[in-house]
Amino acid sequence: MKVIRIIPVTGMPIIKEGDDLGLLICEAAARQGTPIEDGDIIVVTHVVVSRAEGSVVNLNEISPSKFAETIAERFGKDPALVEVILRESNSIVRMGDGHIITETKHGFICANAGVDKSNVPGDRNVALLPRDPDLSARRIRHRIKEITGKDVAIIISDTHGRPLREGEINVAIGVAGIKPIRDRRGDKDLFGYTLRVKRTAVADELSSAAELVIGQADEGIPVAIIRGYKYEPSEDATARELIMPREKNLFA
Amino acid sequence: MKVIRIIPVTGMPIIKEGDDLGLLICEAAARQGTPIEDGDIIVVTHVVVSRAEGSVVNLNEISPSKFAETIAERFGKDPALVEVILRESNSIVRMGDGHIITETKHGFICANAGVDKSNVPGDRNVALLPRDPDLSARRIRHRIKEITGKDVAIIISDTHGRPLREGEINVAIGVAGIKPIRDRRGDKDLFGYTLRVKRTAVADELSSAAELVIGQADEGIPVAIIRGYKYEPSEDATARELIMPREKNLFA
Repeated sequence: MKVIRIIPVTGMPIIKEGDDLGLLICEAAARQGTPIEDGDIIVVTHVVVSRAEGSVVNLNEISPSKFAETIAERFGKDPALVEVILRESNSIVRMGDGHIITETKHGFICANAGVDKSNVPGDRNVALLPRDPDLSARRIRHRIKEITGKDVAIIISDTHGRPLREGEINVAIGVAGIKPIRDRRGDKDLFGYTLRVKRTAVADELSSAAELVIGQADEGIPVAIIRGYKYEPSEDATARELIMPREKNLFA
Repeated sequence: MKVIRIIPVTGMPIIKEGDDLGLLICEAAARQGTPIEDGDIIVVTHVVVSRAEGSVVNLNEISPSKFAETIAERFGKDPALVEVILRESNSIVRMGDGHIITETKHGFICANAGVDKSNVPGDRNVALLPRDPDLSARRIRHRIKEITGKDVAIIISDTHGRPLREGEINVAIGVAGIKPIRDRRGDKDLFGYTLRVKRTAVADELSSAAELVIGQADEGIPVAIIRGYKYEPSEDATARELIMPREKNLFA
């Protein structure tokens, strides 16, 4: 019987621009008596990555366009915030019920292009998504290998609402070292029946599992270690594999 | 530092109609040295609930309607299977790319109305979703309390595809003893900012976490215990809270 452990990484400092996230994670994990091990999956909430990389914008420095002002008025939002959302977006996918859902420059479809006010210091500061979350993940993975010699998988997570279902869950927006989708087509079930449709978005499931320890806003736990899950390693995987191509999307 | 454990319940027998799932879970958990504890969340994959409740249909006994035959021909599916899918549905939400996505009688929007061929014994047998998954969850919860005296939460899970994202994840279709959504609106973040939009679908996240041990088709692990997550108890919660009302749904 193989138990999977979801270990919160406590005692991380408040992350600021230029911080060495890989090092800080190694130190905090060691300090709490759970040093990084080979095969660990380390889930990092995107906002600390954005802060470390300086992907933070002060809304006082933004001049909203006419269109941003129009949208902001209609939705009762801050025009500067709407301007930032539009700058981060390829297209607007849906607007309504107080939500602006866009396709980000990376291709993710989510509310407010992932622009986030929570857990960002400074009254008028908002965090953008990391420029290239796969690259951010790769850098952290490489740094952890450098420091500890251990081979790990990194997932950068974000909180997304879903069409069709209430509430938000955590999903993967960047990965390194792990295949985000486990393809089980062709596997046999319990009775020898061959599974036809079964492609499990394990990187999203791991992100959701990590949220169970990360999701305490007041405790400031930005990182979780998932230990004991045998993932499929990959050197060139990308979280873009989790984005449904437009032509397959029945709900576009 | 509070670690969450995801414990696979191994050694469950092949579940058949009339089986006492609550008892079998208690026995298997005890046998492997992880007896049920107060506060455990027990995630049960729906197909064993359907089998225990006899929600299994033999396709040889189904006469497809004309409409089912039309759809079946168009999608290259078995007309009897399409007939069963239609009987389980309130409406067809989308058809295309080989998928029939319907709203089930419960109100869930998913592929094939949740009708499932995998892990069902018998060449022509398919499992339907449990008639009332919340009630199924309550029964199991009550039975476990009766046998062990322990207070637990039960989640009945199913594998769902998602609009917008590739791959499937596990979500909750029935709950007992646990609030499926944790409402954090009004909580403060790390810097004292009040969270405005933050309703976490914890029952879905717990289902996804459980899938990390359940998802091995060939090992036949239908149940996982999640230990160490402090959930919000509720006596009257229902997984219907996870269904987005049509008027809020920007992607309907």
